[in-house]
Amino acid sequence: MRALILAAGKGTRLKPFTTVKPKPAVEVCGIPLILRTFLSLKGLGIEPAVVVGYRAEEIRKILGEGVKLIQNNDIERGNAYSVLCAREEFEREEKFLLLMGDHLYTPEFLSAASRAPPGSAIVCRENDTIAIDEATKVLAENGKVLDIGKGLENWTHIDTGAFICRKDIFDLLDEIFRNKRSFEWSEAVKMANMRIYEVNEPWTDIDTPEDLPKAEKLLLRSLIKPEDGIISRYINRRISLNITRLLGRFDVNPNHISALSFLIAIISSYLLLSGSYILGGILVQVSSIIDGVDGEIARLRFRKSGFGGFFDTLLDRYADAFILSALFLSIPFSIRNFILYLFALTGTFLVGYSASTFKEAYGMRAERLEGKLRFIPAKRDERLFLISIGSIVGYFTEFAIPVLFLLLAAFTNLRVFGRLLMAGGMEKSTS
Amino acid sequence: MRALILAAGKGTRLKPFTTVKPKPAVEVCGIPLILRTFLSLKGLGIEPAVVVGYRAEEIRKILGEGVKLIQNNDIERGNAYSVLCAREEFEREEKFLLLMGDHLYTPEFLSAASRAPPGSAIVCRENDTIAIDEATKVLAENGKVLDIGKGLENWTHIDTGAFICRKDIFDLLDEIFRNKRSFEWSEAVKMANMRIYEVNEPWTDIDTPEDLPKAEKLLLRSLIKPEDGIISRYINRRISLNITRLLGRFDVNPNHISALSFLIAIISSYLLLSGSYILGGILVQVSSIIDGVDGEIARLRFRKSGFGGFFDTLLDRYADAFILSALFLSIPFSIRNFILYLFALTGTFLVGYSASTFKEAYGMRAERLEGKLRFIPAKRDERLFLISIGSIVGYFTEFAIPVLFLLLAAFTNLRVFGRLLMAGGMEKSTS
Repeated sequence: MRALILAAGKGTRLKPFTTVKPKPAVEVCGIPLILRTFLSLKGLGIEPAVVVGYRAEEIRKILGEGVKLIQNNDIERGNAYSVLCAREEFEREEKFLLLMGDHLYTPEFLSAASRAPPGSAIVCRENDTIAIDEATKVLAENGKVLDIGKGLENWTHIDTGAFICRKDIFDLLDEIFRNKRSFEWSEAVKMANMRIYEVNEPWTDIDTPEDLPKAEKLLLRSLIKPEDGIISRYINRRISLNITRLLGRFDVNPNHISALSFLIAIISSYLLLSGSYILGGILVQVSSIIDGVDGEIARLRFRKSGFGGFFDTLLDRYADAFILSALFLSIPFSIRNFILYLFALTGTFLVGYSASTFKEAYGMRAERLEGKLRFIPAKRDERLFLISIGSIVGYFTEFAIPVLFLLLAAFTNLRVFGRLLMAGGMEKSTS
Repeated sequence: MRALILAAGKGTRLKPFTTVKPKPAVEVCGIPLILRTFLSLKGLGIEPAVVVGYRAEEIRKILGEGVKLIQNNDIERGNAYSVLCAREEFEREEKFLLLMGDHLYTPEFLSAASRAPPGSAIVCRENDTIAIDEATKVLAENGKVLDIGKGLENWTHIDTGAFICRKDIFDLLDEIFRNKRSFEWSEAVKMANMRIYEVNEPWTDIDTPEDLPKAEKLLLRSLIKPEDGIISRYINRRISLNITRLLGRFDVNPNHISALSFLIAIISSYLLLSGSYILGGILVQVSSIIDGVDGEIARLRFRKSGFGGFFDTLLDRYADAFILSALFLSIPFSIRNFILYLFALTGTFLVGYSASTFKEAYGMRAERLEGKLRFIPAKRDERLFLISIGSIVGYFTEFAIPVLFLLLAAFTNLRVFGRLLMAGGMEKSTS
């Protein structure tokens, strides 16, 4: 599928930002709105073209060479005219995705929106990231758009500025502009008798300068992975997202962040080995938090790569081995301690390993099917948190480290065993 | 695509086997020829139908319920008539795969053959598994079948009994049988002006009782995986394939073989721990050989499953950890020994782990791209062989175990590091 992004308008309300740059060029987390939409679409395999008009050169500069730009030479005729300008380029497409260039869309939103049937206005439910006064509302009846506009008294949904158009929209617009000089797209939506299609993935519109921090927050929150462990979700992400917010403005290489997290893990291993349990334990948790930043920046700045994931996974496993081994060497050697350490280490490796093998065998993430198994703390964020706490307690009592190993061994191997049972169950249900 | 399997003929030459059963019912490695072809096609997503005639009930019994059988009530009219019998069932297919029910085809052969363009006779080059006197030869010119038959003096290829037919073949056969009472398919191939398409994956025809052991060998050799390590290829498979040949006649559960291999690894760990280096070392290698049998039987008897692979991988990792840890505990504790052990264990885990993560990231097996990296002995068969040798040497000199750890640590971590460099290189070549 192809997408048409409207970026010809003036967007005067976002002053003072827009005295400096047109609204689609406004940056959130270091990347202009329109570039984010553009790169997200590319990542989804959707080929975008952009209608430009007002300060077209600046938009062109942001998007770079090799982008299909469509010129609207008369932006006073309303944004419906921008759509009509794309007739020649899009009239052979059975359907296409229409988007507003000055909205903030996440890849999750665009992916869901692209699955709507032809002739759909993508809408969402009211939510706290949308300034309701400024929002374009939709009144739907029997699944159809009955009315649309900012000033509606009665309304059922919020317009997201995304539509899946059929090619016959161009005939309608031709007809309209035969009689009118200027026309708004929202009026055309009403006339086209579009169906509504609800998508509640994150997106937002930026109308006033006050909306910018809210948009940033929305974008950062969308970086949290659904398969995150409990510690990551409730502790680590609160800090790592703030680091990402600061670093995200610069062109940081996510692999350097992975390396930094690894380096901190090495230092903490050295500290634990030499008996500095409190500082070592704290640094373990710091390393764990930094370990979230690489992925966040990669997704935020479209720097996700196969190599990055591979590199991060390998470094994490070495770090895990070093931290556990440092703790093991810091306590007196005994067969009991060694066995606890061995099972903790093996289980640690197998949690990630089994996730990877599970995905290979069944084509989906084990985490999605784990149900109550998810509450066994065995993922990396949870393990490192346990190690951090265990090490700090270890400063006060020598039993803490063997107990820590015992807990890690039990949790990790139980979770792996649970996945094995799960795999056995899947086999039965399909055969 | 659909496939049509011809199994209506008498196949008298394979006596004494065929006095007992029709030729497609002859078993190789415990599975009748036609059932193997049938299950292989199913595994490739190709839906087979079977033309039956001579002793149709026996074929029906082998294939079970739910199979589309087409009756040929006059098998004296030649096998071209069997194809015509399928007209009603197949004339709406643009193309279909035609196969001889009494040949032995491997899934690799069928997969390659199914990719031939419509109107192709699948041929192969002369090779040592085909009895050239009995084979149907093909004389090709400019990529077309000029002549085909057993008695050809001049020929260029061997007929495999596999064809990709266009639906217009039925019109030709209708035309032929308007004038003839009996007609052979090979004559029809000539008249249809088919192109040749070369496939050299393993298949064979069984003409005489002497061909049976050869067919069995061909089938067993086809179970060797292309990504096998050196030890597996040159030592383990020679033994494991013989075990599979014996066990393959029974309906053995491959997961039980995985469990047996694990059990032997546990026993060998116990022996190594208690200083029985020679017996322990031998059992490590025995466990490694048995570890090949589960996969062979799974592929041979169509019992491959996601669970089986997952179960085997997990057991292998625990076994690896136990064997290395037993060796570590069998020597005096020192920091040097511990560090060598730690890197050997971590590297051991990461060889398989990185293969799995690599496949997740790049959608292909790391082994396929490894080039010279493949010569670093780090895969499981190679590691266990090193451990086996190292343990036996360890009976004579106490330095053997630390040296073994050093070698394992170096080889495994080097191979993982090589994969990381490879991933970095791929990133550059695609960006």
